Amino acid sequence: MRVYWDQLRDRLERLRANKIFESFVIFIIIVSALLIGAKTYEETSRFEQIMRWLDLGITLFFLFELIIRIAAEKRTLNFFKKGWNLFDFLIVTASLIPIDDSEMVLIARLLRIFRVLRLVSMIPELRILLAALLKSIPRMGYVALLMFIIFYIYAAIGSFLFESVDEQLWGNIALAMLTLFQVATFESWATAVLYPTMEHYPYSWIYFLTFIFLNAFIFLNMMIGIVLDVMQKESAAEQLETGEGEVAEIHWMREHMQLMSEQLARIEAQLQEQKKL
Amino acid sequence: MRVYWDQLRDRLERLRANKIFESFVIFIIIVSALLIGAKTYEETSRFEQIMRWLDLGITLFFLFELIIRIAAEKRTLNFFKKGWNLFDFLIVTASLIPIDDSEMVLIARLLRIFRVLRLVSMIPELRILLAALLKSIPRMGYVALLMFIIFYIYAAIGSFLFESVDEQLWGNIALAMLTLFQVATFESWATAVLYPTMEHYPYSWIYFLTFIFLNAFIFLNMMIGIVLDVMQKESAAEQLETGEGEVAEIHWMREHMQLMSEQLARIEAQLQEQKKL
Amino acid sequence: MRVYWDQLRDRLERLRANKIFESFVIFIIIVSALLIGAKTYEETSRFEQIMRWLDLGITLFFLFELIIRIAAEKRTLNFFKKGWNLFDFLIVTASLIPIDDSEMVLIARLLRIFRVLRLVSMIPELRILLAALLKSIPRMGYVALLMFIIFYIYAAIGSFLFESVDEQLWGNIALAMLTLFQVATFESWATAVLYPTMEHYPYSWIYFLTFIFLNAFIFLNMMIGIVLDVMQKESAAEQLETGEGEVAEIHWMREHMQLMSEQLARIEAQLQEQKKL
Amino acid sequence: MRVYWDQLRDRLERLRANKIFESFVIFIIIVSALLIGAKTYEETSRFEQIMRWLDLGITLFFLFELIIRIAAEKRTLNFFKKGWNLFDFLIVTASLIPIDDSEMVLIARLLRIFRVLRLVSMIPELRILLAALLKSIPRMGYVALLMFIIFYIYAAIGSFLFESVDEQLWGNIALAMLTLFQVATFESWATAVLYPTMEHYPYSWIYFLTFIFLNAFIFLNMMIGIVLDVMQKESAAEQLETGEGEVAEIHWMREHMQLMSEQLARIEAQLQEQKKL
Repeated sequence: MRVYWDQLRDRLERLRANKIFESFVIFIIIVSALLIGAKTYEETSRFEQIMRWLDLGITLFFLFELIIRIAAEKRTLNFFKKGWNLFDFLIVTASLIPIDDSEMVLIARLLRIFRVLRLVSMIPELRILLAALLKSIPRMGYVALLMFIIFYIYAAIGSFLFESVDEQLWGNIALAMLTLFQVATFESWATAVLYPTMEHYPYSWIYFLTFIFLNAFIFLNMMIGIVLDVMQKESAAEQLETGEGEVAEIHWMREHMQLMSEQLARIEAQLQEQKKL
Repeated sequence: MRVYWDQLRDRLERLRANKIFESFVIFIIIVSALLIGAKTYEETSRFEQIMRWLDLGITLFFLFELIIRIAAEKRTLNFFKKGWNLFDFLIVTASLIPIDDSEMVLIARLLRIFRVLRLVSMIPELRILLAALLKSIPRMGYVALLMFIIFYIYAAIGSFLFESVDEQLWGNIALAMLTLFQVATFESWATAVLYPTMEHYPYSWIYFLTFIFLNAFIFLNMMIGIVLDVMQKESAAEQLETGEGEVAEIHWMREHMQLMSEQLARIEAQLQEQKKL
Repeated sequence: MRVYWDQLRDRLERLRANKIFESFVIFIIIVSALLIGAKTYEETSRFEQIMRWLDLGITLFFLFELIIRIAAEKRTLNFFKKGWNLFDFLIVTASLIPIDDSEMVLIARLLRIFRVLRLVSMIPELRILLAALLKSIPRMGYVALLMFIIFYIYAAIGSFLFESVDEQLWGNIALAMLTLFQVATFESWATAVLYPTMEHYPYSWIYFLTFIFLNAFIFLNMMIGIVLDVMQKESAAEQLETGEGEVAEIHWMREHMQLMSEQLARIEAQLQEQKKL
Repeated sequence: MRVYWDQLRDRLERLRANKIFESFVIFIIIVSALLIGAKTYEETSRFEQIMRWLDLGITLFFLFELIIRIAAEKRTLNFFKKGWNLFDFLIVTASLIPIDDSEMVLIARLLRIFRVLRLVSMIPELRILLAALLKSIPRMGYVALLMFIIFYIYAAIGSFLFESVDEQLWGNIALAMLTLFQVATFESWATAVLYPTMEHYPYSWIYFLTFIFLNAFIFLNMMIGIVLDVMQKESAAEQLETGEGEVAEIHWMREHMQLMSEQLARIEAQLQEQKKL
């Protein structure tokens, strides 16, 4: 019985790792994405019945693929240790819950949209890209906090000073922060925000210009700095791993020089010995 | 007979490589570009006859130049092995096809426009620039795919949620993607897209802000990262080729240290031998 | 008496360095920030009494925390040597001044807003970020000066040439500089500034395009250059300090090679000596 | 007589190099800049007489300073060998030409504006910045040419296809290029250019999106690449000059290793000799 099970697992494992099967899964994910896109067109309502069948087919195929992947694992728990597997499991099982309530249709639709993200979990290159992105998040976090503090202070000042100018832009701190974000993206910041304010407060340009300069200065400095630093460290780590590139060559020399230095010491000692004789 | 042909080919080869001839070809390409530009002005219609003759002249000159370049090659097939030659051949021959049909005039015009691209194939510096650009395309492709997935998911969500707000912006997934691209370029994103939406869905700013942050974060991180990486690798390769610069010096040291290490081993062995005697 | 004082100072010092106490201070700063934010909402006027008590509580807590930090210092003067301490002292003491005058309420409010900045002085990561930023300011200063000169020259030309076109945009050099800043941020620069000007001066696009190109060229070149340079130098300094990374390895080799060279000279001298014998 | 002249020249040379004199010149340049700025205000017309005297004073002072600098030079011709000196000479002498013609007033004003640029020639840090900028111009030139070709081709296509949509935006190739530049800066590109065009040509988004992607791709890739490359080469050159930094250390090692290698060869030869004996 157990041998039979092991054979089946081997077969499933081979199926899972099969390039054609992988491509087929990617194909089904794309079909599922197109289906979601098609639903946003009015004209598709007359194909509703076909689309429902297609949707059911995709859901069942994803379930089938998930079961294969779980079964191919030697220990079922191992499957859930990888973040992407957990992600796939949640997406697939959540779309199995039968939703009759018409109000819940929106949630069901959203769940189907997130199935597109399975593309990322299927294509290794995208997984690597995402992993690299995640590495720069911790340091980005502090920059984001610093910028949030600046936004908050400027928003508080703005809503105290300019509330009377435009209730909709500066009515409270939340609106003021949104307005400042609009200013930070340069969208109609002069024509719709600066000039109307300057009509009441002629010196308000100081407020806006210091805000823009502070933001641009911090953002440019930090983002470029962090991206470069993260990239450089990764490039160095990669070179040390593959043993190619100047960082690896320097590291090799660093270690080799130690050996040469010891060799020289031995030679000198021998010569010293000869001298004594 | 064959000797005569070889002599002719040598002469054509010399003509092709001649700096003055090259400059003349570039001059003709620029004239052809100016001719296209001139045609976009209404007032030029009275010079139509002259322009037709000029156009014919340019077409014939390009044909003549193409024939020279093909004839200068020892084996005609070699000519078509280079991408730029193939490009020139297609551009030149396509404009020879006589077009009488008035509906096809547009296509004939477009073909003439693409002749301007021959500037790139004629100026070596531009060819090098383009070659460097092409190298970063494969890695850019995956970043583009990742961003497309994000756009697709947000567009699907947007067209489900905001369809009732503005049919023209969120009517279907294609329109929603275009709207999101407009948001990503910050063009009227707040005044024309965010605020109208917030009137119906006060919390829709979450949708837009997460979209903008995700996009900016991925785009900045990846583009800068890729550009830097590609550039650094090319700079290192160039240094190794010319033998100048720190990367080349490190490489030289890496190889030289090996030799020194062997030398030291020989010295030590000799001293060991002396000792035995 | 003195021993008792020393014991108290030790206890205060431990309290100040206590992680829970630090977190509590950060929590109070955030509460104070939320309070400021809440005040910008109209509806909060009925909680006015509660908010006043909260405000008083926060002010007193900040005073209490400041006294602890000063008392924990061995010499009171040392406390004021650090910029951040001085900043905290000013923010805290300034908000103690009783303000009855209704006209001064605004200043009292602004002082309370700046208390949010205490987050930066409390979180070490933010302090490090800010310190890194400050390092690039001197060099940025000259770039800013260069750009200011360009803005000034263009503004002077603009206000001489285009004053008749739009008094509000080009009326005097200050307005012209603001308009040029708007052009530099690309906000409605074509639809609201360029096209109206071109109706009177068809060649004014030369003025705007050269301005945009000059700005973009200087800004991109210099900002990226400075950020990279500052970052690279800091990265090198950090590597030399920790002794890890290729810069540190190169430095180690550089010093070690000197020793090896001397060793080789000694060996050669000894061999020379042997020869003479 | 000649000794007297030499003494005078020495004194002028010392005056020219005097820090206080330099600061005074910079002060006068700033006064001259403020004067230009003041003239753009309507209200200043009643101070006209004072301003004329001030202007004359500044012109004479600049002439005086120029004469000092020329006289301080050992050979008058040397003065004109430096670009900045020539620039100063032209600016100063041009403003001496008496202009009575009211139509020429504009040119006289423009000349006075360019006096602000003398700040750059007086402050060494700005001169260095500008010199660094100039170095990246040649390579930028080819990128600019490549982008111009892309603009030209798209403008030609655009003016053939969209002329009927909006005569003002696509009327001829020059207008189309300006429109495309507006699109490239993302100014109202969607609301004012894309959507009106899509009403007639629903697929015109392909034209705009490919244009934006091509531009962004080339611009980002090349600008960042060039800036980085120029900066890295300058940083390496600076390190080699000062003898500090990792590039200098690598270079030192590279040269030193050669010596060590030769030393080792000598040692080996001596040992070989000993063996023979």
